[in-house]
Amino acid sequence: MKSYSVKELLSKQPVGDTVEVNGWVKTFRSNRFVALNDGSTINNLQCVVDFENLDDALLKQITTGAALKISGTLVESQGRGQSVEILASKIFVHGAADPETYPIQPKKHSLEFLREKAHLRVRTNTFSAVMRVRSAMAFAIHSYFQQNGFYYMHAPIITGSDAEGAGEMFRVSVLDAKNPPLDEKGEVDYGQDFFGKETNLTVSGQLEAETYAMGLGKVYTFGPTFRAENSNTSRHLAEFWMIEPEMAFYDLDANMDLAEDFIKWILKYVLDHCSEDLEFLEKRLLDEEKSKPQNERSDMALIEKLKFVVDNNFKRVSYTEAIDILKNSKPNKKKKFQFPIDEWGADLQSEHERFLVEKHFKCPVILFDYPANIKAFYMRLNEDGKTVRAMDVLFPGIGEIVGGSQREERLEVLQQKISELGIDEKELWWYLDLRRFGTAVHSGFGLGFERMVQFATGMGNIRDVIPYPRSPQNAEF
Amino acid sequence: MKSYSVKELLSKQPVGDTVEVNGWVKTFRSNRFVALNDGSTINNLQCVVDFENLDDALLKQITTGAALKISGTLVESQGRGQSVEILASKIFVHGAADPETYPIQPKKHSLEFLREKAHLRVRTNTFSAVMRVRSAMAFAIHSYFQQNGFYYMHAPIITGSDAEGAGEMFRVSVLDAKNPPLDEKGEVDYGQDFFGKETNLTVSGQLEAETYAMGLGKVYTFGPTFRAENSNTSRHLAEFWMIEPEMAFYDLDANMDLAEDFIKWILKYVLDHCSEDLEFLEKRLLDEEKSKPQNERSDMALIEKLKFVVDNNFKRVSYTEAIDILKNSKPNKKKKFQFPIDEWGADLQSEHERFLVEKHFKCPVILFDYPANIKAFYMRLNEDGKTVRAMDVLFPGIGEIVGGSQREERLEVLQQKISELGIDEKELWWYLDLRRFGTAVHSGFGLGFERMVQFATGMGNIRDVIPYPRSPQNAEF
Repeated sequence: MKSYSVKELLSKQPVGDTVEVNGWVKTFRSNRFVALNDGSTINNLQCVVDFENLDDALLKQITTGAALKISGTLVESQGRGQSVEILASKIFVHGAADPETYPIQPKKHSLEFLREKAHLRVRTNTFSAVMRVRSAMAFAIHSYFQQNGFYYMHAPIITGSDAEGAGEMFRVSVLDAKNPPLDEKGEVDYGQDFFGKETNLTVSGQLEAETYAMGLGKVYTFGPTFRAENSNTSRHLAEFWMIEPEMAFYDLDANMDLAEDFIKWILKYVLDHCSEDLEFLEKRLLDEEKSKPQNERSDMALIEKLKFVVDNNFKRVSYTEAIDILKNSKPNKKKKFQFPIDEWGADLQSEHERFLVEKHFKCPVILFDYPANIKAFYMRLNEDGKTVRAMDVLFPGIGEIVGGSQREERLEVLQQKISELGIDEKELWWYLDLRRFGTAVHSGFGLGFERMVQFATGMGNIRDVIPYPRSPQNAEF
Repeated sequence: MKSYSVKELLSKQPVGDTVEVNGWVKTFRSNRFVALNDGSTINNLQCVVDFENLDDALLKQITTGAALKISGTLVESQGRGQSVEILASKIFVHGAADPETYPIQPKKHSLEFLREKAHLRVRTNTFSAVMRVRSAMAFAIHSYFQQNGFYYMHAPIITGSDAEGAGEMFRVSVLDAKNPPLDEKGEVDYGQDFFGKETNLTVSGQLEAETYAMGLGKVYTFGPTFRAENSNTSRHLAEFWMIEPEMAFYDLDANMDLAEDFIKWILKYVLDHCSEDLEFLEKRLLDEEKSKPQNERSDMALIEKLKFVVDNNFKRVSYTEAIDILKNSKPNKKKKFQFPIDEWGADLQSEHERFLVEKHFKCPVILFDYPANIKAFYMRLNEDGKTVRAMDVLFPGIGEIVGGSQREERLEVLQQKISELGIDEKELWWYLDLRRFGTAVHSGFGLGFERMVQFATGMGNIRDVIPYPRSPQNAEF
């Protein structure tokens, strides 16, 4: 007798065969109909139980959450809602789930409640769908790059380099926490630590990815990154996954082309490969939004929104143009912005980005050529001497989803910038070496993976798109 | 004019076209022949320079390591060693590389020397080949699992759980390192730390992967893991990447079947997709071994060895059988083992594993059913009450490459084990919940990614198969 997954049985439909399937009970109705799910698909397999001939003790164990092995004949279903079902001839209970204590009962649970049960929430329809989409999206990312001549590189997680400047860092240490050894000056003696120096968790693999791009040509990272920022919001995590492609011989235009093509391709992949999960998530979102006032609901349903991104060009707008648009916009004139836009040079806030994307252009926007002093030191200075070849991709509902730039490839310009910022050149000796030996135009960007999963699944809180979210005061499991 | 990668030009060969290519100079011979490489392939593209008509200043910049853009006509090559070449009509120097200071000159560098130049070593043939194979192998792993119904899950990197017991851990903290806040008892007050509790870097994602397998059915992790062990060897890293599949409804036999099929499939993928890099690495290894005494050289060349693993069944041997073999072996009788095998229950050392794999069976071996007291607490106890359903896959030259088990799915048995070990049940409440609600037979294993890359590339030191190795006293870059 062959063992199948629920997905296989529902798609291959070997009607007439005696089959075996394992899974968990989603619901058990009329002492006869078990909806069985094994996580392989959002859809359940209906198993028809001959309760008149079933041991009573066994029957009592068939409750939501119980793990069963069922064998029987696959037949065309008489009922509605499924094409095939199993006439169960044998049922084995791997493990019961006491309805009195099992928290995941067949009723609506709040997302907040489920966050406390992160080890069980993947057994719900919503989280299993989100996590299957997340998995498909990760594979889409690898597939895209591998098909396009990129090599995957693992940037280091523990870093001795503290010049990245992208945010607060977590310290990694094995020194005695209470009584650390001190040096002659009375400071903590990291010379005695595991790595013989102070080390932190990486905030970005970009600088190391650049070293690899300057040898392998086109590379990408896909790994965890960390920010020790006390941001308790629905958009921030202390531990999140980032994708950072880096390409030798790419200028900013080629970089923008890549970012747009890449994003469209992975959303297309998800549309093609996760349609059932997306349909479920779309319905979930519609349900959720019913309780919201009309003006807070999405303009488009989930799948329509994804298709819209795939099918339409992103609007490319320079920072200078964007400032003009914002300065002359209604909300600015009516003083509706919390941070009014007065002049060129202002850092754009979320409210401005949302206005541009959601109200003005009504499509994804790529902003480029930002003022140098609001962007990172490694971005290439334009000929105007005041803007850099930066670009941000802005998405409706999400804000910045990609940030990138052409990198400063000129040694003297980079040294000048580093010196102005008071960074010790020694800290970046290896990064500067790339400009000393065989330097070339190159570019790259970073994509926050969880933000992309949020966009694709319609989940409002970033904590609901990663298995075990890490945030201030929260490192359970 | 179309821009191509070196790999594209060498494979598509658009002879007669005017093309553009970017890359770095590997060598420049007779003022005429530039061997150009852009990292896309191990092979160089020959570019023929008309030096009589070239500016002298420009000519001087064409040295090893310089980044060039070359355009010209692609023609069939007159010389040996390449099928096509470019007759360069235009050369642009992106960036020079002063031969006086550029460390990567066209001569043999020791691997030790290159470790100090980890930001440049990927520009050598050896490291570019290793890193391309590494990238292909990572993709093969994702492809295998996605094709076989597994979902990729990201286990947390920062963990508040300290019950995994797989080794020494790195502490993650943002508390003042010199003067940490103390609680009433005078201990470090982690309540004031970022996560409100003591946190560490994960040593394994297995326990969290189990929670996902019990919802999604079949999952795998692929992420960094950490060991703060003071092991300065060619086989250990403080930061390394692990793959951990976990499958609901799999017993140990199914687990062993999966491990064997998985390993063969990814090695087959590398053989199929990285043949040129493997040929280069095979030659490198032969060269390296020439300086070794005959008895330390490999029996098989690299590619032959990989094919051997792909084409032959792994030998499955119980621990008990293995002990019998070892007890009666020549080296044991002649007291050649550092740790003689006297009786059942002994933990196997590297010398024993190597004897079994390299001398006795001469093929990969899967050992299973180990004594309970030398294995982890979560492994399923056999009916004999003294062995557990553990399995290790042992490889020639590498030793243990996979370690796995069927997991203890019975609540009481697991509680008993935890209590015997003095672990507080509260630490593992969520792990125990899996046995309370819908428990089932399940299994999984862990594969050390770098060990696998070592095996496929023939590199002797694990520090040479990861971009930026982390080990005691070493966290540069």
